[in-house]
Amino acid sequence: MSFADRIRHCNSYDPTRAIPLWAGEYRIGRLRRDNAEVLARHGDIFAVEADSARLLADGDPDTVSRIVDGVVDTLVAARLVPKWRNETFDVAPRWGEKPIFRLDRGAVPFFGVRAYGVHLNGYRRDGDRYSLWIGKRASNKQVAPGKLDNMVAGGIGNGYGAAATLAKEAEEEAAIPPALIDRAVAAGALTYRMETKLGIRDDVMFVYDLEVPDGFQPSNADGEIAGFELMPLTDILERIRTTKDFKFNVNLVILDFAVRHGVLCPDDPEYLDVANGLHRPLD
Amino acid sequence: MSFADRIRHCNSYDPTRAIPLWAGEYRIGRLRRDNAEVLARHGDIFAVEADSARLLADGDPDTVSRIVDGVVDTLVAARLVPKWRNETFDVAPRWGEKPIFRLDRGAVPFFGVRAYGVHLNGYRRDGDRYSLWIGKRASNKQVAPGKLDNMVAGGIGNGYGAAATLAKEAEEEAAIPPALIDRAVAAGALTYRMETKLGIRDDVMFVYDLEVPDGFQPSNADGEIAGFELMPLTDILERIRTTKDFKFNVNLVILDFAVRHGVLCPDDPEYLDVANGLHRPLD
Repeated sequence: MSFADRIRHCNSYDPTRAIPLWAGEYRIGRLRRDNAEVLARHGDIFAVEADSARLLADGDPDTVSRIVDGVVDTLVAARLVPKWRNETFDVAPRWGEKPIFRLDRGAVPFFGVRAYGVHLNGYRRDGDRYSLWIGKRASNKQVAPGKLDNMVAGGIGNGYGAAATLAKEAEEEAAIPPALIDRAVAAGALTYRMETKLGIRDDVMFVYDLEVPDGFQPSNADGEIAGFELMPLTDILERIRTTKDFKFNVNLVILDFAVRHGVLCPDDPEYLDVANGLHRPLD
Repeated sequence: MSFADRIRHCNSYDPTRAIPLWAGEYRIGRLRRDNAEVLARHGDIFAVEADSARLLADGDPDTVSRIVDGVVDTLVAARLVPKWRNETFDVAPRWGEKPIFRLDRGAVPFFGVRAYGVHLNGYRRDGDRYSLWIGKRASNKQVAPGKLDNMVAGGIGNGYGAAATLAKEAEEEAAIPPALIDRAVAAGALTYRMETKLGIRDDVMFVYDLEVPDGFQPSNADGEIAGFELMPLTDILERIRTTKDFKFNVNLVILDFAVRHGVLCPDDPEYLDVANGLHRPLD
């Protein structure tokens, strides 16, 4: 096994198995063909053809959201969308632009809509030796239960920016006070596209680094993390290379941390595949 | 003008204007069609067809290098390759693998062979305010004369690794002693593919950061840099956004520095295009 295997795992998307989903002139999602067939039953809302699908609903975001929610109801009833998450993501032409509608988080992979999240590397440093605070996900999480995770991570819900999401999740997930999370440094964006049981994850992860002071111990407030442990980065990298203990996309966030901080170096033959492979084009 | 314009400028490669160049099972370059026509005159060494070309020369790297050099001689005579640089780059299937042959640096864009270089961000920091040491390229440089440059940058010649190239160039270009350059931190790899007058640049830049101590003043020893200036990063970014004062690929290196150090932030609408656009896939 190799680092590149972890990146490949997150990029399992196969374009031949999906069709684009359009709203007006914007491609807003990618539908796996079996999911497209289901949407074809809602011909008044989605026009589904062999090689593309189109959202027909028109109007302001509230109106379109309500209409799409009606379809999501039927998908939940048919168990094609696991359940209502009661948390909505903006569906917009591009990052930072006005949303066309809002979509329940649980339905995002079904429609293959691009989703945005934040991930925080909470680290300590002794010379050039780094350790990271690693969370263990609760065993009842819907996605990746029991897997190892970043100190803080979360999806960007509608109306939130990246920095606001980070501050909110930092408080809920790790009890990081505002004065400390304010010191977090934005450090880039990672991208991957993955086919899952539910559909397609087309994800952007905004990564942040936070040097955690001596004596600070993260603690979880929302029940999503079972516990935290400070682990040496070299041990973490070996575990990433040889196991699937970390949540699929967290492997990418930590590899990026190792690349940016000179823990992985260019003279490693796998370096270029890692450094480049963390950034899938936003096509 | 925008940051994204600088990235687009470095990615002017148009696949319809080029054909792949193969050696055995490996694609080792990309030939612009007009360059391919010239190579077709050397039918004993290159088999050129409508949609691909193939290096026919076979043997150990020394043998193949000598045969290709014979062709490069004719390209220099025809002024299709500007002049012998007398510095050779490895032509290998992939980064870190054994070379198939070595190619004079001046001929690299003609064949569209992937080239590797190192770029050093020499910075000073006051809280979250950064300044970078910026070099001004000598007016007699073959590429980008008079343009602004990183503190240190150079191509990776055959037999050198990235770290060794950085140390060599740091000494020659900026009089950075070994004990100081040893503190440079590898921070990633940027990629772009650009059509130039000569052919195609398919470049990988390994980027390094070095926090330069107070009192250290870079000075150039090899005549390639006319002078150095310490500039505030915010001023540099504005100049990158609104002028072409910086060498084309140096814009990318500095944008990456700003992304990695939280000077550009995700809630900037252009952020994602910048953070993602610095990493062209290595196809």
